[in-house]
Amino acid sequence: MPYSLSDQLMRAARQPGPARVHDHSGSADWQGIAQRVALMAGALRDLGVKPGDRVALLGHNSIDYLCLYFAIPWAGAIGVPINTRLSTAEVIEQLEDSQSSVLLVDADFAAVAQAACERLPSLRHSVCLGRTTPPPGTSSLEQLLAQATPVADAGRCDDDVAILFYTGGTTGRSKGVILTHRGVVVGTLQWAYTVGVGASDTLLIAIPMFHIAAGMNAIAAVMMAAGLVIQPRFDPAATLELIARHRITKTALVPTVLEMLITSPHFAQADVSSLTRITYGGAPMPTRILELALARLPHTRFYQIYGQTESGGVATCLLPEFHAVGGEAGRKRRTAGRPVVGMDLRILDAEGRELPQGEVGEICLRGLALTPGYWNRSEQTAALYTDGWLRTGDAGFLDTDGFLTIVDRVKDMIISGGENVFAAEVEGVLYQHPAVAQCAVIGIPSERWGEEVHAVVLLHTGASAGAEDLMAFCRERIGAFKCPRSVSFRNEPLPMTSLGKIRKNELRAPFWASRAELQDNT
Amino acid sequence: MPYSLSDQLMRAARQPGPARVHDHSGSADWQGIAQRVALMAGALRDLGVKPGDRVALLGHNSIDYLCLYFAIPWAGAIGVPINTRLSTAEVIEQLEDSQSSVLLVDADFAAVAQAACERLPSLRHSVCLGRTTPPPGTSSLEQLLAQATPVADAGRCDDDVAILFYTGGTTGRSKGVILTHRGVVVGTLQWAYTVGVGASDTLLIAIPMFHIAAGMNAIAAVMMAAGLVIQPRFDPAATLELIARHRITKTALVPTVLEMLITSPHFAQADVSSLTRITYGGAPMPTRILELALARLPHTRFYQIYGQTESGGVATCLLPEFHAVGGEAGRKRRTAGRPVVGMDLRILDAEGRELPQGEVGEICLRGLALTPGYWNRSEQTAALYTDGWLRTGDAGFLDTDGFLTIVDRVKDMIISGGENVFAAEVEGVLYQHPAVAQCAVIGIPSERWGEEVHAVVLLHTGASAGAEDLMAFCRERIGAFKCPRSVSFRNEPLPMTSLGKIRKNELRAPFWASRAELQDNT
Repeated sequence: MPYSLSDQLMRAARQPGPARVHDHSGSADWQGIAQRVALMAGALRDLGVKPGDRVALLGHNSIDYLCLYFAIPWAGAIGVPINTRLSTAEVIEQLEDSQSSVLLVDADFAAVAQAACERLPSLRHSVCLGRTTPPPGTSSLEQLLAQATPVADAGRCDDDVAILFYTGGTTGRSKGVILTHRGVVVGTLQWAYTVGVGASDTLLIAIPMFHIAAGMNAIAAVMMAAGLVIQPRFDPAATLELIARHRITKTALVPTVLEMLITSPHFAQADVSSLTRITYGGAPMPTRILELALARLPHTRFYQIYGQTESGGVATCLLPEFHAVGGEAGRKRRTAGRPVVGMDLRILDAEGRELPQGEVGEICLRGLALTPGYWNRSEQTAALYTDGWLRTGDAGFLDTDGFLTIVDRVKDMIISGGENVFAAEVEGVLYQHPAVAQCAVIGIPSERWGEEVHAVVLLHTGASAGAEDLMAFCRERIGAFKCPRSVSFRNEPLPMTSLGKIRKNELRAPFWASRAELQDNT
Repeated sequence: MPYSLSDQLMRAARQPGPARVHDHSGSADWQGIAQRVALMAGALRDLGVKPGDRVALLGHNSIDYLCLYFAIPWAGAIGVPINTRLSTAEVIEQLEDSQSSVLLVDADFAAVAQAACERLPSLRHSVCLGRTTPPPGTSSLEQLLAQATPVADAGRCDDDVAILFYTGGTTGRSKGVILTHRGVVVGTLQWAYTVGVGASDTLLIAIPMFHIAAGMNAIAAVMMAAGLVIQPRFDPAATLELIARHRITKTALVPTVLEMLITSPHFAQADVSSLTRITYGGAPMPTRILELALARLPHTRFYQIYGQTESGGVATCLLPEFHAVGGEAGRKRRTAGRPVVGMDLRILDAEGRELPQGEVGEICLRGLALTPGYWNRSEQTAALYTDGWLRTGDAGFLDTDGFLTIVDRVKDMIISGGENVFAAEVEGVLYQHPAVAQCAVIGIPSERWGEEVHAVVLLHTGASAGAEDLMAFCRERIGAFKCPRSVSFRNEPLPMTSLGKIRKNELRAPFWASRAELQDNT
């Protein structure tokens, strides 16, 4: 039986029920969504979009963004959601890499679209969403829809490519991660099973829909024919209002955003009693935020998700019962939990041998919804798998109960004099120093040691500490081979990706500029 | 990524934990199960089993039965679980149809195995499970294992055939329903999602493992690395004892077996407080049993499953909240619920047109885990699907909320004078007559009407009613065209399949013996 996004949408459309999909501009039922999808697909066909073409999307969350998630595959094409926080040059890089023929944008991004059309001959059309009059050279989606007729589903399914998610650029040029129709459908089912999303839920999407986490929530809402509220972007007061108005049962956040929500001045007045589940990703919940969250959202259960676009979005999950502060269960709180159903996990050394429990190595995955590889990058695709196991590039270890602790990125591991140094461990020590506001530990070239541990540090305003102070602070706490041999100080915050990760590659670049090693590190 | 039973078992084996798999003879952890599976696969190879071969299984539930579920595909072969309640002739028919080369049996079935080996040249080996000395001509699995070495997984996956479940013979010769590796893995995930089976569950299998319902429970336990208790066969006192001893959280039963459990003289003393979920299938729960169950198992939630082997086991589910007696929710209790996640459902007329809500037609399915067809039956396989939709052969209708009511088998529908008569409706009326103990309504040949409604009836001991009484009783309650035109009385219970369905084909046969129509009906 085919696995396809269109089939899942048609199933939802056939379930009777009231209008349960809402955004800032209106409401729709699943049948209405399906009708608009078929019409949008017709408009894409009218633009000359053919099966297998790439169609890019640059905009804030909306019902139309959701519709395009489905309309592009319905027309037989491949969706390319683009990060709204990228520079114009970065957007153009992804449009060029994917060879997208159409770009759909919010009015806010019309200038980016114009610049991209001028630069890229492969980009044949830019189309503006919404009801505003588009700038010259850009079509209006509404006008296209007024002239279009609905088309039949193109029938793409199974191993056909459904979507390309470009990964953030912490380590070099971003790559398009291929997700197939089957991967998306089964990955969403796997995730929905894990966190228990069902037809009676009303999901809130407040995180950006160009990210796979929001994508899974949106597709889960379709697969379950659940309720779905789409917020253009997170805003504490507005999010709290939406939770109360729509009786939201589940949402996905990152810990810092959760903190903003529960410390908002509007929180005390807000009715959040419907919110039974929050999923969050990227990192364990800091104790401070968790304690506050448990106190202020006593009826809410928390699920920590560890995953990456390459794994189909979710690899492990720390379940609610391990979110206690203190006690036996609380001891698991700093872990990323256990592999989700259908996901197998091994820790391998650099030679691909399985390491025993407790030893740190590369986290490798085997599962139902993994990517087949990167778009048009055969070399990096070949390096992604070893003997059928996906190499995540993350370093970690398993405890006796099978819970995973993530130590670091393998690429952030520094090999100094034959010893492995995990940057995250050293950073954790530096953050204990009262003067340190922000830091990143990287490997820099060393004639003697191969690599040498180096710290890049931003001090708190008014605080002072010298390189020797910080190095001595570290030597009191961790092995000498792990301690920075040098420190460089910054006056401005370290460069970050849109997902809040420090761009270490940018920090490393000046040190390695003359070395071939930098190329290997991208 | 490959979808395979072996991968799922290896995932379970890698999850640390205590021995959570138990039967009457012992206990094992998932790693031990995986080791035994690899050894059993080695023994099958030693017998000459090659990838794609069929290996049949005839026995009561046990850990070894579970191991063989996985060892046969691990060796690259296709499992054929056989109903233990069949006659020797019927067993031989399925062995011949599947062209099985090996038959593994419990000691109880050694004679059947011998008879089959004598009759079928294609059956090269019969192997006896357990520690008893096998009869001449039959090998002992334990002896084979003592000489075998574990082998690597044959790597069968995705669209490769994993298992053949032979369907019961209510309508003609039984057919082998093909389930692929992907179908089994995704179908089990779909089902586990629906009823919420997880790693912390301990499942009890008391229904026979040759049936897909037990198979899904067993495979779900593997996929979740859950606890699993396997009972050779249902027995109220022993089942209650197992529930208490192993703190069983979930089991699958049929309504009549549930009634036996909760009306057992041992029930009052039994600790069933751990049992939070019961799935049951085949039919809505009779009010009498439901009321008793809700009173005696107040902490247990009930899930009614409607499905067939062809749909991968589960098509719709009636969730616990609709098991109330009375009230708004209780009005859905006589339905089969709504399609499960990943399953689309339409009601089609004989010409394949979709019928509007409320109208009775054939229930057709489209989903993630459907069978690709019947083993070696291209004609029946071709008839199974229309435009990509599986024809279940069941008649039903959807209500305004999308809940399915199953009316009858399409094949049990009688077309009399151009009017559709659903046997189940007429039987429902006959059962209201105090004298009727058992009845079946069938179509018999009629010169005038094409078919004519006929009732086969067994009266209660000591009760009396004539054909005219029963026909008049019907005429007072339903339209004249639905009422039996003739009645035949039986002195013995009507012939039943092992699943408790009346063998209507057997009842029809004498009436249609001289007609070609009977052939069409198989």
